Amino acid sequence: MRASLYLIATQKETPNDAVVISHQLMLRAGMIRRLSSGLYTWLPTGLRVLRKVERIVREEMDRAGALEVVMPVVQPAELWEESGRWQQYGPELLRIKDRHDNPFCLGPTHEEVITDVVRNEINSYKQLPVNFYQVQTKFRDEIRPRFGVMRAREFTMKDAYSFHLNVDSLQETYDVMHAAYCRIFDRIGLDYRPVLADTGSIGGSHSHEFHVLAESGEDDIAFSTESRYAANVELAEATAPAGERPTGTRSMEEVHTPGQKTIAAVSEFLRSDPAHSIKTLIVLGECPEGPEESDRAPLVALVLRGDHALNELKAEKLPGVAGPLQFAPEARIAEELGCGVGSLGPVGMKIETIVDRSAAHLADFICGANRDDYHYTGVNWGRDVELGRIEDLRNVVAGDPSPDGRGQLEIKRGIEVGHIFQLGDKYSRAMNATVLDENGKEQVLVMGCYGIGVSRIVAAAIEQNHDDAGIIWPDAIAPFQLAIVPINMHKSDVVREKCEHLYESLRDKGVDVLLMDEPKARLGAMLADVELLGIPHRIVIGDRGLEKGVVEYKGRRDAESQEFAESQLEEVLLKLIGH
Amino acid sequence: MRASLYLIATQKETPNDAVVISHQLMLRAGMIRRLSSGLYTWLPTGLRVLRKVERIVREEMDRAGALEVVMPVVQPAELWEESGRWQQYGPELLRIKDRHDNPFCLGPTHEEVITDVVRNEINSYKQLPVNFYQVQTKFRDEIRPRFGVMRAREFTMKDAYSFHLNVDSLQETYDVMHAAYCRIFDRIGLDYRPVLADTGSIGGSHSHEFHVLAESGEDDIAFSTESRYAANVELAEATAPAGERPTGTRSMEEVHTPGQKTIAAVSEFLRSDPAHSIKTLIVLGECPEGPEESDRAPLVALVLRGDHALNELKAEKLPGVAGPLQFAPEARIAEELGCGVGSLGPVGMKIETIVDRSAAHLADFICGANRDDYHYTGVNWGRDVELGRIEDLRNVVAGDPSPDGRGQLEIKRGIEVGHIFQLGDKYSRAMNATVLDENGKEQVLVMGCYGIGVSRIVAAAIEQNHDDAGIIWPDAIAPFQLAIVPINMHKSDVVREKCEHLYESLRDKGVDVLLMDEPKARLGAMLADVELLGIPHRIVIGDRGLEKGVVEYKGRRDAESQEFAESQLEEVLLKLIGH
Repeated sequence: MRASLYLIATQKETPNDAVVISHQLMLRAGMIRRLSSGLYTWLPTGLRVLRKVERIVREEMDRAGALEVVMPVVQPAELWEESGRWQQYGPELLRIKDRHDNPFCLGPTHEEVITDVVRNEINSYKQLPVNFYQVQTKFRDEIRPRFGVMRAREFTMKDAYSFHLNVDSLQETYDVMHAAYCRIFDRIGLDYRPVLADTGSIGGSHSHEFHVLAESGEDDIAFSTESRYAANVELAEATAPAGERPTGTRSMEEVHTPGQKTIAAVSEFLRSDPAHSIKTLIVLGECPEGPEESDRAPLVALVLRGDHALNELKAEKLPGVAGPLQFAPEARIAEELGCGVGSLGPVGMKIETIVDRSAAHLADFICGANRDDYHYTGVNWGRDVELGRIEDLRNVVAGDPSPDGRGQLEIKRGIEVGHIFQLGDKYSRAMNATVLDENGKEQVLVMGCYGIGVSRIVAAAIEQNHDDAGIIWPDAIAPFQLAIVPINMHKSDVVREKCEHLYESLRDKGVDVLLMDEPKARLGAMLADVELLGIPHRIVIGDRGLEKGVVEYKGRRDAESQEFAESQLEEVLLKLIGH
Repeated sequence: MRASLYLIATQKETPNDAVVISHQLMLRAGMIRRLSSGLYTWLPTGLRVLRKVERIVREEMDRAGALEVVMPVVQPAELWEESGRWQQYGPELLRIKDRHDNPFCLGPTHEEVITDVVRNEINSYKQLPVNFYQVQTKFRDEIRPRFGVMRAREFTMKDAYSFHLNVDSLQETYDVMHAAYCRIFDRIGLDYRPVLADTGSIGGSHSHEFHVLAESGEDDIAFSTESRYAANVELAEATAPAGERPTGTRSMEEVHTPGQKTIAAVSEFLRSDPAHSIKTLIVLGECPEGPEESDRAPLVALVLRGDHALNELKAEKLPGVAGPLQFAPEARIAEELGCGVGSLGPVGMKIETIVDRSAAHLADFICGANRDDYHYTGVNWGRDVELGRIEDLRNVVAGDPSPDGRGQLEIKRGIEVGHIFQLGDKYSRAMNATVLDENGKEQVLVMGCYGIGVSRIVAAAIEQNHDDAGIIWPDAIAPFQLAIVPINMHKSDVVREKCEHLYESLRDKGVDVLLMDEPKARLGAMLADVELLGIPHRIVIGDRGLEKGVVEYKGRRDAESQEFAESQLEEVLLKLIGH
């Protein structure tokens, strides 16, 4: 592409409505423009990147045996009523009416539509498994769209849906898709982790999110330093500390701790480490009369090490604990347990007590005395207080052993760019999508779904790859692979001929080249644009170099430029580009 | 692609909700499925065709120097208010509100959005001309969606918009786009005509529609048998008949024609040819007090040959005639002209009379006597009635001379698949899209727009190319180029090996091959599917042929199959496919 026939549209100023770096750089590099809240136009440079991501996604979906289809953006309400989601889905589902006043929505996802297609087209087990995908415009009416295309209202998504006779077949396709997703993110060139994710209320056994690691990510990912284990922090199992519990050496004493109500305050007051204290949280237990009668629910004590954080997701899944998790009102605690929340502890606790694995491993610890302004020190399980039920109650922290027994956990932030999910029969049962099995018996289909945030990948790649000068594209998705920057092209015939010749030769070989041929552009401005655009390779061609038979080359990640012999230039460039 | 891993989804029955053949065949061939009124899912076979059309369109747009962008489907009302179309556009513009109750619409077209982009990004004449295009999902809330994807509500369109400093530059790009459109339809392999079209109320000087010729088309296209002239019938100029007007030989007589009020009735009653009669239509003239006072508008008589049809578009553009055209109320005709509409004629007509070119060429003709139940015969211009103003008032008919003087006009029906349009400054002026010219002076941009109905092309191609057995794809957009049909593949190792080998070899060379490898499919059913799907080339491989060293080949348009030597099969096939 010739810059003179292209729209570079770079901007020097950082737009003040853009918070995250990818949003700033996508605006500055002329990739996108805001049309309205959460709605963006993709300018030529942005679209070139988006299309490269799309192509990789399509190639790997095809390779994985998925069949491409396209479903409408606008979907009739009827189908969503069949699945029950017309009522359940929040206002992110933009509900509209057509000119005849019939209800429709703008599709944020297509489970209902594909299930409708499949129940009409697939009727025998012989046609299974099937896996359909599309790369398509989605709409989600975010209450507060932000971060540019990272959390836009209109966005491009690859969504796939597979259908099976049984869960074994689903597991097979799920594994194939897991591998395909890894290939996609490998090919794009991102540092990512497939992480175990919450299956939410659907209760499927398996779900993985694919996260691009980046400081600006909204999720905390725990992953092993030595194995492939990775999970959302909320889901990572906190294993019991290794070895036996140490034997206590101190005796239990009640100490006066006037006004000290937090772990931090008590630890400082007693000059001890919070990791040697215990905190006790009181939540509501399951209410025999149902969740409406929560003021009659029994209380349950959760006991954790002082430096650990409660994982509410883990706690609320435990038998005997009400979900979603509710902390007990202070009034009930005072009335039933006889003290304030700052002085609770397991010794003499009158209600069911669940102890976290790490807390259960302590000896000679400090805890509240269940009497205001008093704590115990030198407490030991068994001797001073019975150790009953032990569970995993806490969030993992960096340095914890990896739950698979290999290595330690590290924690980084991640941007979710993919999600694969075993849906089971949620949609197929509600919408009566069945096939006849080998015995001619009707079977409800089993379903998986697999999403990739195609437009979000573009932003995530920038979050992970940028510097002060601009974007640093992974080669596979760069808008251009190479920029040719001439010095005074409009004055020097030699420079012009050399640049034109190289440009045409590489272009004809299928290289994405940008020739900076604006007649009067300044060298500094051109180089700044090339860096801002994140083009992986660039050369500068000028009279002075040509006289010496050299041109200047610089890779986008290189600290210094180097000189290449002009005679071997094309050969060397093709090799660098990996062509 | 292997049929066993694909979704063929053909149907034997003609769906009873499909009227036109393309809709029927797209459903029967498993290309599309209806989701709701005017909303279709593209199944794998349909999408393969759609993608091939898209690719050709993109390649030619790129070649024409247009830059690809993508604009949002959902557009804010503000921009449409700026252009004035929020009020003007009918209910085809689906207006919606988001969760914050802000007004938006689903874009049926993107003039406003691109003009907004351009007024922000382009500010100097040096950046001009520019031409942006997108291939994108559009929504038009048709009151009665019909004919499948031909007139759907959600559809795929290629829309391009160019911006210029002046009309000369616009004309240049317009010509480039005209040529690009011709290349697109040539490459797809359609019989089409670029036709002069109405510029409507915008008043641009140039507009062409691109029509695929097909009996089921909704538009009548007039085109020359000998030149490239083509125009919408409504716009084709009806030239004056060649030569001098014949000299009259009969004398004018008033004859009694009781109850004969139409050309057909009078002609039969007087045993004459309607082509020798004249009909007189009374319309409203331009009203000096403005269009609201139409009951005070003067009357104007339009005179045509009895066998010709009035062209309202031509008439309403004439000075002195009110537009849009309105026929005079019968009461005013009776009151002011003294007779009913069945007895009007130019002889003694008291109001301004405009005579069509062909009517002006008649001699010895019949016309109403401006007295109920009476007509004149043997009337001649000049002698019996003054011949004043002569204009082109009628629709052309087949056999008329071509207006460019070369050949005669033929009339066929066409399906509009493209439209190019010189918009002028309608949007750029309303939205204040300006640049600085060479003298630093602000200039309002001049704009062109260029549309292609990408999904409609798929249907139009079928309307033009089908037979009783199904679709006959032009090679360039066929879902598969070749089908390999084995006989008893599951029983014969030789057949299976031969088929697999050929399939893999051709696939690896980039040929779109469909291997019919469903183990127990019957030969007849497979061949019927291959014909219905419209695959241009197919071979049948069976033991009996292989023993003789031959396989059976049939092109989709061939009447008979032929035998190819197995030894040269791949070579011959590659040649036929044009690979």
